[in-house]
Amino acid sequence: MKILKLLSIAMIFAGIISCTGAVNQPVASFGLVIHGGAGTITKENTSPEKEKLYSEKLKEVLQTGYKILNKGGSALDAVEKCINMMEDSPLFNSGKGAVFAANGKNELDASIMEGKTLNAGAVAGVTHIKNPISLARLVMEKSPHVLLAREGAEAFAQEQGIELVDEKYFFTESRWDRLQKAKQRETDRKSQSSLDIHPDEKYGTVGAAALDKNGNLAAGTSTGGMTNKHWGRIGDSPIIGAGTYANNKTCAISATGHGEYFIRGVITHDISAMMEYAGKTLQQAAREVIQRKLKAMGGSGGIIAIDHLGNVVMEFNTAGMFRGVVTDNSQPVVLMFGEEQK
Amino acid sequence: MKILKLLSIAMIFAGIISCTGAVNQPVASFGLVIHGGAGTITKENTSPEKEKLYSEKLKEVLQTGYKILNKGGSALDAVEKCINMMEDSPLFNSGKGAVFAANGKNELDASIMEGKTLNAGAVAGVTHIKNPISLARLVMEKSPHVLLAREGAEAFAQEQGIELVDEKYFFTESRWDRLQKAKQRETDRKSQSSLDIHPDEKYGTVGAAALDKNGNLAAGTSTGGMTNKHWGRIGDSPIIGAGTYANNKTCAISATGHGEYFIRGVITHDISAMMEYAGKTLQQAAREVIQRKLKAMGGSGGIIAIDHLGNVVMEFNTAGMFRGVVTDNSQPVVLMFGEEQK
Repeated sequence: MKILKLLSIAMIFAGIISCTGAVNQPVASFGLVIHGGAGTITKENTSPEKEKLYSEKLKEVLQTGYKILNKGGSALDAVEKCINMMEDSPLFNSGKGAVFAANGKNELDASIMEGKTLNAGAVAGVTHIKNPISLARLVMEKSPHVLLAREGAEAFAQEQGIELVDEKYFFTESRWDRLQKAKQRETDRKSQSSLDIHPDEKYGTVGAAALDKNGNLAAGTSTGGMTNKHWGRIGDSPIIGAGTYANNKTCAISATGHGEYFIRGVITHDISAMMEYAGKTLQQAAREVIQRKLKAMGGSGGIIAIDHLGNVVMEFNTAGMFRGVVTDNSQPVVLMFGEEQK
Repeated sequence: MKILKLLSIAMIFAGIISCTGAVNQPVASFGLVIHGGAGTITKENTSPEKEKLYSEKLKEVLQTGYKILNKGGSALDAVEKCINMMEDSPLFNSGKGAVFAANGKNELDASIMEGKTLNAGAVAGVTHIKNPISLARLVMEKSPHVLLAREGAEAFAQEQGIELVDEKYFFTESRWDRLQKAKQRETDRKSQSSLDIHPDEKYGTVGAAALDKNGNLAAGTSTGGMTNKHWGRIGDSPIIGAGTYANNKTCAISATGHGEYFIRGVITHDISAMMEYAGKTLQQAAREVIQRKLKAMGGSGGIIAIDHLGNVVMEFNTAGMFRGVVTDNSQPVVLMFGEEQK
């Protein structure tokens, strides 16, 4: 099993490396890459039970996405469905399992974009929507707008026949405890008058990016944001070009990390622009932006991406990132820790 | 007077053209460019009285900004102050004079960014803030976040000692009438099941971009958004990389137009990225993005921008755009119509 996994990893990186030799050759006819958040994820602080839980869920998500794409389904459908599964799992900071804002509520952000049309939809600060990514898709397809926030977004959801869920649906004990700890740290911080955010408070988020058999790309991101965030705070996840971007000319990307830096760096669009204008490969652009530009700003986090040729990248500057990849010519692979990043 | 104006226009464009010959030579030691919205602004549908009103207000704004920059003030201060003046004037779709959302409220968006640090702040959907651009600056300087929305943003304003104003402050008869007309058109549209937006409903917005004597760039944008927008809709104005972007390496930009397209095209960051990665001048990049890429998507609007050498661009694909420019070596010039765009 372990050998199989290592073999698969080797095959993926062989794919990535091979593309630098022949950048215009497709390496897969379809593919899917997902993340479940970046952060202080190390082998040392992850119990075998926890590792198994995440590993199994991420594999299940990959298998579902694979089936959709293999049957000729759209990248958009695969992205939405994969994110729905992570939103429904309390393991991740999105949907059920979302972190708490400073006011004790779960305020959810999400966005989705398709690379063929550059259409996009997003919602921010919704508190009664079970699957924010699906509402983001409805905003894209059924409204003249891209981004709807808070009660206005929920009014739109109701106009579209989406049932609102009780706020209690989003409650999880562990996230609530994390808010209490963050509030304690905030009290301590105030005496130092610092705006710094503790590492534990700023990570989470789920996302997916896919290439379908028709050569179309799509990406999406969904999150509860940052523990103890000021209520009303919008992070990078619902911002096109920051947390999510897709363009058939270049790639589809979803980000996770300290959102404010991803907004200021316009990180996902920056990677795409570097491919479009500087002729970089996805791997080169992602490495440059995440390892050099984002770091230079003081930002931490990562991205997952797939380009129009099927090349996949999972780049992060944190200790680890929950992530997984599958293509038509590789088995599903799930990774978590930094030492697996080449 | 007319000759002086034409001479000034010629000097500005001479400046722009000269830069294509020697792209690394500063053309001004400081400069300021502003806009008061793009749209169906033509000589034919603008009365001499209206032209005079806009012209005088835009000149006053330019003169104030010039004084700040000439005294060695920061680009950030100039941008904020200039936008404050337009927010306080009922002539523009921002602050006093903002358009109405479908729910009969004035929901205001704004953002500001400084090019040296890539710091940014933004607010979205505030309904009781007299000067949203100043609150955006406070978000940048006094919170760990970039973007705060709606009641959460107003709670932050109160924490910072900003007084909330009554919603009635934003009422203007002409904007209210426009909402009623838009609602009538919407009723007509529904029978055609179209999501198209009427040209009159999607324009407005004010913005400024400046270069100061220290070589620092800043940009800001403030708006009431789109007449009859779904409540909770966030446009491009508070989105970094869409409505506003500033980077000392490239340029400072503020956009106005049909916001959804500016979000999907990540328009202001795209112009900056084209300069950074493809080696284009500001003029070349702005023309390519506004006249070709934005148009190809079906998007309309424009941008004003200044680069780190003092080159100024005012590019739009609409009939006209209220706009003005002043630098240390040119008199203030105010323009409105398309025929003045070279």
